[in-house]
Amino acid sequence: MGKSVLVVNGPNLNMLGTREPEIYGKLTLADIQRACEDRANARDLGLGFMQSNHEGELVSAIQGALGTHDGIVINAAAYTHTSVAIHDALKAVGLPVVEVHISNTHAREEFRHQSYIAPIAKGIICGFGIDSYLLAIDALDNIFQQRN
Amino acid sequence: MGKSVLVVNGPNLNMLGTREPEIYGKLTLADIQRACEDRANARDLGLGFMQSNHEGELVSAIQGALGTHDGIVINAAAYTHTSVAIHDALKAVGLPVVEVHISNTHAREEFRHQSYIAPIAKGIICGFGIDSYLLAIDALDNIFQQRN
Amino acid sequence: MGKSVLVVNGPNLNMLGTREPEIYGKLTLADIQRACEDRANARDLGLGFMQSNHEGELVSAIQGALGTHDGIVINAAAYTHTSVAIHDALKAVGLPVVEVHISNTHAREEFRHQSYIAPIAKGIICGFGIDSYLLAIDALDNIFQQRN
Amino acid sequence: MGKSVLVVNGPNLNMLGTREPEIYGKLTLADIQRACEDRANARDLGLGFMQSNHEGELVSAIQGALGTHDGIVINAAAYTHTSVAIHDALKAVGLPVVEVHISNTHAREEFRHQSYIAPIAKGIICGFGIDSYLLAIDALDNIFQQRN
Amino acid sequence: MGKSVLVVNGPNLNMLGTREPEIYGKLTLADIQRACEDRANARDLGLGFMQSNHEGELVSAIQGALGTHDGIVINAAAYTHTSVAIHDALKAVGLPVVEVHISNTHAREEFRHQSYIAPIAKGIICGFGIDSYLLAIDALDNIFQQRN
Amino acid sequence: MGKSVLVVNGPNLNMLGTREPEIYGKLTLADIQRACEDRANARDLGLGFMQSNHEGELVSAIQGALGTHDGIVINAAAYTHTSVAIHDALKAVGLPVVEVHISNTHAREEFRHQSYIAPIAKGIICGFGIDSYLLAIDALDNIFQQRN
Amino acid sequence: MGKSVLVVNGPNLNMLGTREPEIYGKLTLADIQRACEDRANARDLGLGFMQSNHEGELVSAIQGALGTHDGIVINAAAYTHTSVAIHDALKAVGLPVVEVHISNTHAREEFRHQSYIAPIAKGIICGFGIDSYLLAIDALDNIFQQRN
Amino acid sequence: MGKSVLVVNGPNLNMLGTREPEIYGKLTLADIQRACEDRANARDLGLGFMQSNHEGELVSAIQGALGTHDGIVINAAAYTHTSVAIHDALKAVGLPVVEVHISNTHAREEFRHQSYIAPIAKGIICGFGIDSYLLAIDALDNIFQQRN
Amino acid sequence: MGKSVLVVNGPNLNMLGTREPEIYGKLTLADIQRACEDRANARDLGLGFMQSNHEGELVSAIQGALGTHDGIVINAAAYTHTSVAIHDALKAVGLPVVEVHISNTHAREEFRHQSYIAPIAKGIICGFGIDSYLLAIDALDNIFQQRN
Amino acid sequence: MGKSVLVVNGPNLNMLGTREPEIYGKLTLADIQRACEDRANARDLGLGFMQSNHEGELVSAIQGALGTHDGIVINAAAYTHTSVAIHDALKAVGLPVVEVHISNTHAREEFRHQSYIAPIAKGIICGFGIDSYLLAIDALDNIFQQRN
Amino acid sequence: MGKSVLVVNGPNLNMLGTREPEIYGKLTLADIQRACEDRANARDLGLGFMQSNHEGELVSAIQGALGTHDGIVINAAAYTHTSVAIHDALKAVGLPVVEVHISNTHAREEFRHQSYIAPIAKGIICGFGIDSYLLAIDALDNIFQQRN
Amino acid sequence: MGKSVLVVNGPNLNMLGTREPEIYGKLTLADIQRACEDRANARDLGLGFMQSNHEGELVSAIQGALGTHDGIVINAAAYTHTSVAIHDALKAVGLPVVEVHISNTHAREEFRHQSYIAPIAKGIICGFGIDSYLLAIDALDNIFQQRN
Repeated sequence: MGKSVLVVNGPNLNMLGTREPEIYGKLTLADIQRACEDRANARDLGLGFMQSNHEGELVSAIQGALGTHDGIVINAAAYTHTSVAIHDALKAVGLPVVEVHISNTHAREEFRHQSYIAPIAKGIICGFGIDSYLLAIDALDNIFQQRN
Repeated sequence: MGKSVLVVNGPNLNMLGTREPEIYGKLTLADIQRACEDRANARDLGLGFMQSNHEGELVSAIQGALGTHDGIVINAAAYTHTSVAIHDALKAVGLPVVEVHISNTHAREEFRHQSYIAPIAKGIICGFGIDSYLLAIDALDNIFQQRN
Repeated sequence: MGKSVLVVNGPNLNMLGTREPEIYGKLTLADIQRACEDRANARDLGLGFMQSNHEGELVSAIQGALGTHDGIVINAAAYTHTSVAIHDALKAVGLPVVEVHISNTHAREEFRHQSYIAPIAKGIICGFGIDSYLLAIDALDNIFQQRN
Repeated sequence: MGKSVLVVNGPNLNMLGTREPEIYGKLTLADIQRACEDRANARDLGLGFMQSNHEGELVSAIQGALGTHDGIVINAAAYTHTSVAIHDALKAVGLPVVEVHISNTHAREEFRHQSYIAPIAKGIICGFGIDSYLLAIDALDNIFQQRN
Repeated sequence: MGKSVLVVNGPNLNMLGTREPEIYGKLTLADIQRACEDRANARDLGLGFMQSNHEGELVSAIQGALGTHDGIVINAAAYTHTSVAIHDALKAVGLPVVEVHISNTHAREEFRHQSYIAPIAKGIICGFGIDSYLLAIDALDNIFQQRN
Repeated sequence: MGKSVLVVNGPNLNMLGTREPEIYGKLTLADIQRACEDRANARDLGLGFMQSNHEGELVSAIQGALGTHDGIVINAAAYTHTSVAIHDALKAVGLPVVEVHISNTHAREEFRHQSYIAPIAKGIICGFGIDSYLLAIDALDNIFQQRN
Repeated sequence: MGKSVLVVNGPNLNMLGTREPEIYGKLTLADIQRACEDRANARDLGLGFMQSNHEGELVSAIQGALGTHDGIVINAAAYTHTSVAIHDALKAVGLPVVEVHISNTHAREEFRHQSYIAPIAKGIICGFGIDSYLLAIDALDNIFQQRN
Repeated sequence: MGKSVLVVNGPNLNMLGTREPEIYGKLTLADIQRACEDRANARDLGLGFMQSNHEGELVSAIQGALGTHDGIVINAAAYTHTSVAIHDALKAVGLPVVEVHISNTHAREEFRHQSYIAPIAKGIICGFGIDSYLLAIDALDNIFQQRN
Repeated sequence: MGKSVLVVNGPNLNMLGTREPEIYGKLTLADIQRACEDRANARDLGLGFMQSNHEGELVSAIQGALGTHDGIVINAAAYTHTSVAIHDALKAVGLPVVEVHISNTHAREEFRHQSYIAPIAKGIICGFGIDSYLLAIDALDNIFQQRN
Repeated sequence: MGKSVLVVNGPNLNMLGTREPEIYGKLTLADIQRACEDRANARDLGLGFMQSNHEGELVSAIQGALGTHDGIVINAAAYTHTSVAIHDALKAVGLPVVEVHISNTHAREEFRHQSYIAPIAKGIICGFGIDSYLLAIDALDNIFQQRN
Repeated sequence: MGKSVLVVNGPNLNMLGTREPEIYGKLTLADIQRACEDRANARDLGLGFMQSNHEGELVSAIQGALGTHDGIVINAAAYTHTSVAIHDALKAVGLPVVEVHISNTHAREEFRHQSYIAPIAKGIICGFGIDSYLLAIDALDNIFQQRN
Repeated sequence: MGKSVLVVNGPNLNMLGTREPEIYGKLTLADIQRACEDRANARDLGLGFMQSNHEGELVSAIQGALGTHDGIVINAAAYTHTSVAIHDALKAVGLPVVEVHISNTHAREEFRHQSYIAPIAKGIICGFGIDSYLLAIDALDNIFQQRN
């Protein structure tokens, strides 16, 4: 049976496309969801997609992936740099994780250089706009196929 | 038409007046709300007023100010020092922001000296008890008038 | 009349027993709750027990202890190391607090060595698995008896 | 009898209005003095107003406020970040102090984030241009009235 | 045959009860020894109890526990924060160790926050006065029973 | 006419496949070159591929890309963390750069967490073995198409 | 002919005796001057005594000591911690220097622990109130006698 | 009409030639002034030359250069490392600045490695004794000619 | 009845006079003892004098001063910079303490700049050779007389 | 016989004039070489001039200057900030060294503020474009003449 | 007459061979002593050999080497990283010192990377098990022969 | 068949004996090579010996040792402190490594205290001049014999 990917989006990503297009582009989160679904379909993968401004809801969504999904693509946005709780949730669930960012976080403020997610991720993809998500789905799919 | 201000209050401010009066005074959050409303009325401003212990609810409230309010007065309390998410939300919304604190945070513990909000605020007012809020409304109103 | 203790559990502790047994043992949070209730009964204490992945809900639960409970046992998990809001809530409520951890956090990653709770706790117990909770209830009961 | 406020201005503030208007606006120090005097009159307060490029003269002026004024509004400019001597003078004099800045110092260079004055000030107001001074006079007046 | 516990006390603990009762209580080290013996008797455990101001004597005592005792309760006092030698002795001996402190060291001076013992202890109990010792004996006994 | 990509490999990557397969997999650098060529062919891209243990040769190769290639995929290996010269060369040449790593460098030693290349890269891909290279070629191709 | 000592006093020391007696005692600077003169007389030493709030005047006074005095007792107060200029002046003049402080600066705020004067002083005496000055004159006199 | 240069000298430079010749050479400040005047004459430049031990007088002299001189050569001596006020004055005046030092400050004490002037200087020349000044006048003249 | 002073000397001070006379002078510890006794006699004070290379013996000697002596002069030598145990002993005993050093420790290696004794000492005297001890006895005697 | 100067240029300086003219000007390295030769001729000096992207070649060139040249002008570019090997080579050769930079490195990225060359250079000249080289040749020639 | 070497062993080395053979091998301290005696005999050297858990006894033993031995081989174990007193003793005695460690301390915990002995040792040998001692005796003998 | 050792020498070691004999002695690198060959012959070992100023050549030489030599003695000189590439090469090759230095690097500049080689070396020998090499060959030979 087909594998499934959960795409987790952190705080303020629901604002995409309405503000600061010079950093994030004009795409909305709905555009990203549609593109992810298309890419998942093309690769015969199931796809879950969620966003929350609440650290706790993100933790719960990650926990809920156990038994439902086979891998996680996560853009934790601001919580990337502050949340030990999301770190612990990802580690407890134990699914392969790909950390993504729309912009290159290493070219921005100092406090965006540290990530609590990176040490437990399979890999990291950042700086390619919407393509960061699609490349992450490709990468996860490759990981699924190597395991089977 | 008149301008409107959203006053955002962070975690534990709902406890005001019941504990630690030597730091925060005896006023309750309801007293602050009433005083803010009076000051707003006197200046012909609309006023929104909210409090939450949840970082995510504060992020959502800030996002919701877009199109509803013209400026934000924020006392993020403990989240001042830890929340990149609130920083991002304020930056995404782009309204003029005044950071307020009831006490002088620079005279307290070391970890209260850093603020993620200060770098994106128009100005900062701290240490004057309830007057910090009222002076902030005055300051925002001056900013509104300079823009018109 | 008898005293009552509130046991507060932070993010991901609802996952106990299902993952990483080499660190946390095979016990579930339900097992811990049952053991706490037995120990409380044996000592004629009331017991509240809650868990949340949300920082804000933990803050609210701590605030709610005022007038309902006489002491708090808290395992804030990941929020131990990042939450000034929980620190402020515990300080505002003013009940005696015992910080507990299932594992010895000082033998794990560097970022788990700092605690925002420790400076305002009566005492700290960590490293004894489920016994950390039971010893904490014993310790709180001793504190209650010294005060009467 | 009426209260009196001393407004103390540090190095380079005599240059205001002639250079870098994109940061400080076009107002001169004379404009600020006049606005402060108007605000003081409206509130029935006496007002002293001085500026010096010399750290030593500022120390002496602060010392001289004892017995002459009832509160101090200070914009120590560059000395804010380096002068232990002004810190000591303010502490020795013991009058209520409000620290003001024309611009938001937290949004500028790193070395402007530390203040030797903040820990001993009643409160801090920064980022509102000339209004920072006027709000500070309002705040001091409120403090005077609470004490009587 | 019954298990035995060695209780090791570091420098200045022989002064207990004569000075600074606001931090350590009025109990003397003899009181603590008696309470530990009672608790050990009640649990059918043997008990050794020693104190020294000499780092070297503490190291030798720990080495001597090998073959004589089955676990160590240690309040290394000042040496907690400076002694790599005691760290090495405890590690070499390999018995289960519980670190105890009478007061909550995390609420005191900065240099008391670091412990060379914590990373190799089974668990840590601090802040409960004499009860810190008794809870530690309870905890060690539980560990003994799980091993048998 | 078709675009062309230069793939630059830093020190010790010529050892791939002969040692430490638990970190880097069994693939050799020749395997990677072949896979990159296939992917480039499939996307109608030209491909250059080079490796050197010399920092100076890598600098010269990057300079030589100007006028020959349209984008750079670089795995600078150890020089990622120490070479300001490669940083300067990439910046001087001004072509779009994608930084790749075979393993997740954030899960390894502390000194591998800093990158002199990241701040000037379009994006970063790490942790996916040989796929890191292929995803980088995909990403560069997308960038080429958005520019035309 | 007799030797002579210059006693140099830094900013705010002219306030002595009027404020903060719990730290500095009730003595005024005039009292200190008189006591220094008595001690100098008893030891057949000449004495100069000056105070300034100006860093520049202190530098000039130190420079002026060359050819007039044979040693310097300096309480630079706040400038102790910030003035490289006074450091350079003392070094250029080359007379033996004794650094004094009325209070124990090591038991006060962190920023008072660093001294630019200590590395070039013959010796340091602090914490003995007015006696710090008198012991310093004694110490300088001993140094004079060893040199003759 | 000819351009003019102001040469600004900080604290203790009036002592040159009388002390520490192993670091600064035997030249006096008058020698330096004469050499500067000769060089200025040879290049048809006006020259101002001043020295002060007062930070405030240096600030005022820099301010006074506006409209009188076209460039500034500054050896701020000790104030190089501590004076934000001089930094601000130079920035406010906006003339081209060359920072000079007689000795190589990077080969001396640690606290002489940081400069508040360097970030806003056109260029820096240090280590060549009196030639540092003359090379700086040459460099400023080149800058003048490029602007005309 | 007369007061008594205990002079405590730390490790390696028994070597005085035999080695490194360029730092410590040619005097032996016996010379220092004799000079201290003379000074104590002249002031009608009792005197204890001890030296040990053992941290534990120094701790015990300090504890033993309680009830026997009225003040402590301590040159803890190397233990000044490493011993929390001596810090605790001095604090527990509660007698007035004067810290002395033969050389100016601030002009030597970095690791000799920190002192665990300074924060709890009445005052500090360093850099005057054997006179450091004698001035300390003078200072303690003054303290005794102020208390009577 | 005439003296000779070796001008050493580090990585990427061969790119001068082709890229980033807003920082480095439009001059090429050949222009700089020609200007240096003219200046050397005018002063009757021999001149060597070399550039390499290889750290090792720069080390070898510096070693080769021994017996061939009498002084070194070095613009080590990126290796300024990372190469202990060039530091050691310059120190081993023992010729007078002048460090030059085209731009003011202190006004650029943080990692360009540290120099391994500065502590062993006679002097430093930076920020004057091509003039930095010419002023350095002037400065070296002055040093040569002072030695003869 | 023959030279003599003192071998000094610090805390816990008496436990060698009984515990943690994976780090230290199975050899006991007696084995090391015997091997050192054999090597000394073969080279016609006298040999002293001692071990203590007491910092003070080690200091005294080092002092006692003066006049008895001609060089010191020291494995200070844990005190390597914490003892300024041993540093001072070695420096006071002035004999050539070789620091040895059985394991490679740089491949172990961070706090074992700093050594107070290294800066005053002739040389350092670590990581070769018992051979570290034997190579150190060889090295000292070479030093003796170069001196004769 | 006999084992073989590769001796690798880093930048500037080809200058040995011509400069700075007070640190490195008068021996040349040729002397060291000859002494190494003699020692290898005496122990029936093969010997390779190379030096380069190029980081890349050292990396390649280390890679080339695989299959040719059985152990590596490396004096990486300046690259010890900066080269992650040599660290990676040594780790990839996997042969036993002994780090050597002619002088005691811990008694020199701060930046020579860190080594990228130490954490992966079998052992370290420094401070014995040419003997450092010979002791290292002895040590490697012992390691070879323990493995056979």
